[in-house]
Amino acid sequence: MIYPKKLETIIEFYKKLPGIGEKSAERMALATLDLPKDEIENVSKDLVDAKNTLGPCSICGHITDKEICDICSSETRNKNIICVLEDYKSVFSFEKAGNFKGVYHVLGGLISPTEGIGYEDINLPSLLSRVEKLENPELILALKSNIEGETTTLFIKKILEDKNVIISRLSYGIPMGADIDYMDTITLDKAIEDRKQISDNK
Amino acid sequence: MIYPKKLETIIEFYKKLPGIGEKSAERMALATLDLPKDEIENVSKDLVDAKNTLGPCSICGHITDKEICDICSSETRNKNIICVLEDYKSVFSFEKAGNFKGVYHVLGGLISPTEGIGYEDINLPSLLSRVEKLENPELILALKSNIEGETTTLFIKKILEDKNVIISRLSYGIPMGADIDYMDTITLDKAIEDRKQISDNK
Repeated sequence: MIYPKKLETIIEFYKKLPGIGEKSAERMALATLDLPKDEIENVSKDLVDAKNTLGPCSICGHITDKEICDICSSETRNKNIICVLEDYKSVFSFEKAGNFKGVYHVLGGLISPTEGIGYEDINLPSLLSRVEKLENPELILALKSNIEGETTTLFIKKILEDKNVIISRLSYGIPMGADIDYMDTITLDKAIEDRKQISDNK
Repeated sequence: MIYPKKLETIIEFYKKLPGIGEKSAERMALATLDLPKDEIENVSKDLVDAKNTLGPCSICGHITDKEICDICSSETRNKNIICVLEDYKSVFSFEKAGNFKGVYHVLGGLISPTEGIGYEDINLPSLLSRVEKLENPELILALKSNIEGETTTLFIKKILEDKNVIISRLSYGIPMGADIDYMDTITLDKAIEDRKQISDNK
């Protein structure tokens, strides 16, 4: 083994992160050792703290260090417009784009009959109870354009068809099959702007 | 601020590592949170442990978790051939190339009159005392081809000219000004093979 064992474990850790190959992980691990001791101790504590203190917002499911996230507790956000996402990571992408002034709902997954993931396995019941409390709710579905995303979209549309809910989905400004997290901010803004209503309610 | 504070500190940490920009750091931090809690606790401990337990080999200055590194304590390495490097990171590059069977000496810097770094500020005294104990020593200087590297090379050549030491430098298979850590293994092997003697001793 070329590297001391402790260094090897850090390399193995970095290799688990997205986009990091063997060579990058090695260089990162060596660079980590060059950092001052107190900085390493701090980040080591931060890593554990972050994992322990960050959890889902009790309203929308977005990651937060509070009971209710900053977006849900903001006075300036329009609580009637809910953007529905699979993953909280996409919330950060929309927030960076910066033009969406509604709120979010993080499903934490998509309906997948093949993988046995149903309506109650993701945060859909909580979405429905949120919608029911609103007077003129509008849902913007920002889900992947694959089978699971389409299935979930159709399910939401069907289960809400008797309610007075405007449902739209993101415009296909987003390339088919691509990961929302990778989109540039202009494409995301465009996709919100060109959202396409799919419910029959006007 | 878009990210919770604890997440922000992890992003800032990753941004300090080589080759990691804003976007990569964000994705890495989010991916880190997705790892199991025990894994995060382990790596957190490993980071501090690595910083605390890894230090220079008392003979060659290479990084190790022991008093004397595996290379210096190996029975199969030729202790008479010492490859002299600026940085211990380069040791890993040569070890990966895998064909060099001598030992190393890590200077931990280069002589730089402009920055006031002299002979005693780097691990040159310990190199000389190593060389004096050997019967037929050979030094391979694997230093950068910049002014500091050339200065250090000339200094070593001059200070050893009365001793019976064969001194060579890496062949210029390595591109001028490039970082040794980035070299591919074939170039590194070639550079060891084509090393060029610069002392007058035959």
